[in-house]
Amino acid sequence: MEFIYLDHNATTPLSPEVETTLKADLSLFGNPSSIHWAGRKSKNKIREARASIASLLNCSPLEIIFTSGASESSNTLIKTTFQHSPKKHFITSEVEHPSVLKTMQYIESLGARVDYVPVNRDGFIDMEFYKRALTPETALVSIMYVNNETGNIFPIKEMADLAHQAGALFHTDAVQALGKIPLDLQALGVDYASFSGHKFYALKGSGLLYAKKGAPQISFIHGGAQERSRRGGTENVLGIVSLGVMASQKNRIAEESQRLEKLRDEMQTRILNEIEDVTVTAGLAPRVTNTLSLVLKGVDGETLLMNLDIKGYAVSTGAACSSGNPEPSPVLLAMGLTRAEAQNSLRVSMGWGTTESQVNKFIEDLKLSVKRLRDIEKAESLLKESDDVGNT
Amino acid sequence: MEFIYLDHNATTPLSPEVETTLKADLSLFGNPSSIHWAGRKSKNKIREARASIASLLNCSPLEIIFTSGASESSNTLIKTTFQHSPKKHFITSEVEHPSVLKTMQYIESLGARVDYVPVNRDGFIDMEFYKRALTPETALVSIMYVNNETGNIFPIKEMADLAHQAGALFHTDAVQALGKIPLDLQALGVDYASFSGHKFYALKGSGLLYAKKGAPQISFIHGGAQERSRRGGTENVLGIVSLGVMASQKNRIAEESQRLEKLRDEMQTRILNEIEDVTVTAGLAPRVTNTLSLVLKGVDGETLLMNLDIKGYAVSTGAACSSGNPEPSPVLLAMGLTRAEAQNSLRVSMGWGTTESQVNKFIEDLKLSVKRLRDIEKAESLLKESDDVGNT
Repeated sequence: MEFIYLDHNATTPLSPEVETTLKADLSLFGNPSSIHWAGRKSKNKIREARASIASLLNCSPLEIIFTSGASESSNTLIKTTFQHSPKKHFITSEVEHPSVLKTMQYIESLGARVDYVPVNRDGFIDMEFYKRALTPETALVSIMYVNNETGNIFPIKEMADLAHQAGALFHTDAVQALGKIPLDLQALGVDYASFSGHKFYALKGSGLLYAKKGAPQISFIHGGAQERSRRGGTENVLGIVSLGVMASQKNRIAEESQRLEKLRDEMQTRILNEIEDVTVTAGLAPRVTNTLSLVLKGVDGETLLMNLDIKGYAVSTGAACSSGNPEPSPVLLAMGLTRAEAQNSLRVSMGWGTTESQVNKFIEDLKLSVKRLRDIEKAESLLKESDDVGNT
Repeated sequence: MEFIYLDHNATTPLSPEVETTLKADLSLFGNPSSIHWAGRKSKNKIREARASIASLLNCSPLEIIFTSGASESSNTLIKTTFQHSPKKHFITSEVEHPSVLKTMQYIESLGARVDYVPVNRDGFIDMEFYKRALTPETALVSIMYVNNETGNIFPIKEMADLAHQAGALFHTDAVQALGKIPLDLQALGVDYASFSGHKFYALKGSGLLYAKKGAPQISFIHGGAQERSRRGGTENVLGIVSLGVMASQKNRIAEESQRLEKLRDEMQTRILNEIEDVTVTAGLAPRVTNTLSLVLKGVDGETLLMNLDIKGYAVSTGAACSSGNPEPSPVLLAMGLTRAEAQNSLRVSMGWGTTESQVNKFIEDLKLSVKRLRDIEKAESLLKESDDVGNT
């Protein structure tokens, strides 16, 4: 059986370039804080990776703080800002990743006032709400660049400018943007941004916080003098190296984005044409090109996922019970989808390894699975109906 | 040139077993939160690793919270305890790793009262001071199990018992104990313990916090439901796998400890016999068998380190300027060594790959380097003397 992975927004495999580098560098073990040969080798590799990433993101190497991933980065920034800023008002969106949403709820429990900007079912963020929410008391705005479930891209530059006009700092969780759209942090104008390596073909456990020069400095994990005393703990050398390898693939990001757009649009058209009662979620708002979020009426997302899983496909759903969540996707519900719609949702997220033949094969099998599940549903309804008739 | 690594307390190379596993598992990329085939593979590997680690540490798998390493673990525990406990008194030692010491200083700046238990130059912790410091107001005691610079082992079981009698929680930074002495957390009786993979031949960026069943639950990095909602963020799957591989080497820990004790004792004896004006720091207190902490009178530690580095040796020193520290080792100074002694310190820490011939070669080269540096020192003194004479 061919295994076809279409869940790149959950995580990505290592790229072949990263795999090759890691195999060669598994012997790279020195502690970068050591001044002897073993330490210097690691230190040099980190310096190279930092320069490569800075070049990709168009920022200074000194503005990069390596962390264990975006969850740590976002926690770091939101919690230390709450602790150190005299201002206690925060703004985020209703569709953030849990690493931002739960952290905002946490500081709320400690006394912060937090406004949650709505996003409508078409994928547009409520700019009027946002403008009204911004006050001179706003310490920090944290809005994701790209939504993980729908792929929607939010107007970060415009929102950051507005935040700055109000005297607030601006952070973006840019996890789902990295590798999917070209990133220029200087042009974007944010003060902080969080990234994870594992959504961009690099190692899990690696990531970074971009902190613009001059922005208030944060320290969340105290300890050694690593990262200019901004993040203690021996560096995840191989994780950082893997990020550096990916950062050197700058040109490919635009190429893959174009290639995937064609694939995604063809897939979307075929699914809409060849399967009944399907809608695309927030497909008209700006979105990254690898993501397709669907609602397949009457088809339970988790059952569909397991059906496709048996056939070798890895996809995702916002249905309850998937990923151990007792509730359907809070993101889809916040956007105004009904519980039934969220329960019938399916997310397909392609990646650099996705081919046209994989997509075509997937569409055929999706059609079969959907038909089968709807037939079973129909048969069960009929049975129930006849039972009901028998019982009367 | 043969490169001989004798700095295992700074970090360790990957073990051959870990390297082999990683090479095979680089394709293991699924997000453990995904319920499809890719996610399940990762989830199963994490479950296996967790069971293996729990067996090594004699605890329940549910008591293990994977983190990015001990710095995060210690920060997590100390800061969340400060935030959530109604009691605001803390106790730690004067010789802790910066991840504990700086974190204690940080909560002090927020209003905590912290007592620092002294350790004398013989390597013994001041138990009378400790007993006097413990009060019903003590929220948490955090004492390292093994000191990274001297290798001294502190009486954690006794100290944890005393803390519990006073109604305080007990945490140990056990980074330097893992893989060097057998660990039985149930017998040790601590409530929490921090560990890093990279001091035990596993990947950097991996580690864990042991939290005893029933001990107050902590959450530092909010986000997804990973680690039973105790630590958000996609798991560092390969890091965890590498820890699991090492945890399966339980029997070897005792064997290597014995083998290294013989090597270390022979090295110590030879150095004391064959080099003049050398003292062993805290060599009579209990210590792990891989570590030898020396003071070589009149020999600048950093210059010695660089001399040995040129010959292929990786060792460590508490001298100022090494590792970018502007001050000599705070640990050695806290123990009562003079600045000159700290400046003349050398740490040799062996590991599972260290052989007798490496040690013998090292001793010969150490003798040459020390002689050379002392000769230069002497010549410079003579020159200075004759200059002074000429100037009068």
